[in-house]
Formats: sequence, C-alpha cells, structure tokens
Amino acid sequence: MEKNRIAMEIIAMEKAALGRWNQGDPSGYLDILSGDITYFDPFQTERLDGLDTMTELYEGLRGKISVDRYEMLRPVVEISEDMAVLSYNLISCSGHEVYKWNCTEVYRREENGLWKIIHNHWSFINPQ
Amino acid sequence: MEKNRIAMEIIAMEKAALGRWNQGDPSGYLDILSGDITYFDPFQTERLDGLDTMTELYEGLRGKISVDRYEMLRPVVEISEDMAVLSYNLISCSGHEVYKWNCTEVYRREENGLWKIIHNHWSFINPQ
Repeated sequence: MEKNRIAMEIIAMEKAALGRWNQGDPSGYLDILSGDITYFDPFQTERLDGLDTMTELYEGLRGKISVDRYEMLRPVVEISEDMAVLSYNLISCSGHEVYKWNCTEVYRREENGLWKIIHNHWSFINPQ
Repeated sequence: MEKNRIAMEIIAMEKAALGRWNQGDPSGYLDILSGDITYFDPFQTERLDGLDTMTELYEGLRGKISVDRYEMLRPVVEISEDMAVLSYNLISCSGHEVYKWNCTEVYRREENGLWKIIHNHWSFINPQ
C-alpha cells in the first residue's frame, strides 16, 4: 500500500512538471531537481551535472517548448526506502511533428521528506 | 567512507560486466540483472521489462559484440540506503567505428546483500 501511494505521488509529480514543461515553463522541473542532479538528453555531448548547469539549460528553453498533445505510456516506479525510479515512454505531438521518448527519472526523498530528482535520462526511441 | 566503498564496488561490478559484454559475453550482465529489470536502448521501440525478456534479448546477441577498445568516462554513483545510480559516458571502438553512449544503471541491494540492476538506460550521445 505504502509503495502504491509513493508510486502515485511520484507519477503525479512528474505529470505536473511535464505539463508545465510542455507549455514552455521549465520551473516545474527546476523546482524538483536536486542540487546533485545528473542529466542526459540527446542534444548534449556529455552528461550534465548540478543544478546550476541545469538551470542555465532550462532557462534557455523557457517559452520555446510548445507541445499540443502528449501521452505518458506505461509508467513504472521501482521503490526502495528513500529512492524511486520512474521510467516511461512518452509520445509528444507539436503541430505535425511526433516525438517518441524513453524517459528515466530517479527521485530521492530528501531529509525534509520531499522527493527530488537526482538523475534524469531522456533519449529518442529508435533514432536510427 | 561507506559511500565511497559502495561507489567503488558498483563501478567495479559495472566494469566487470561491461568487459565481458564487449567480448560477446552477456552473462556478466545477466548474472546481475534483477527479476524486475526495466530497460531502454536505442534499438527497441518501447521499454523492455523483466529478466525473461532481457535474457532473450541478450542471448540473441551472444558472440555478436566485439569491442576493441572502450573507455568509461566520469562515472558518478549517487547512493542511498539500498539503491545506487551509476551514470557515465562510454566511448567504444569496433574496428573503424566509434560509438558514443550515455549510460544509466540503477542498482538495488537485495535482501541477501548483493547489488542487482533494476533499471538500465542506454542511448547514443547526440544521435542527430
């Protein structure tokens, strides 16, 4: 039961942040990134580390993302005492473009009880 | 100190499995995958779930991988009570081909004290 509750909480956090992201607002994610976040996406040439680096990246994208429709597919949350791994596929539609993503989010429960993202990995499904 | 020891143990496990993988032997990874493994790589059309699915995938690749040289770049391990997130970039050379990877491995400490991989995400650096 406790694990179900945590899984629902993590998925709700992710959907809230993703919903804002898709309207051009990165603050939903920035508010829940940990200071020691590590990050991969398909546009970087190496892993990005730390909240300052992520803030610079995400503030540079503020107002530039506009997703019309999206669907989070088969989210799974694997939970331990104070970490939770959320993985899902995401289909995002912007105009006539369709983007298909693999997403990994690792959440950690901080000392104040709040969950924050310590690792995030985005990649395109089958980009070849 | 304990966290340093765990980080070194996780990195050593990953290097051992990766070394075997690069010689065509998937058993190094198969031996340390958890039953509830979730998995992304750039060749799949959606997330793969479970050890049976992974065994089928990896056994189909047995003897087919041959990496001449590889380098694990800037491995970082983020550790909690019973989970550890390893992330790194990987450069692999096979003949004249060079492959550049982002890698996420989430390890969980099982009840018997052994670490197993519960989530793995491979993607190409900047595939566009």
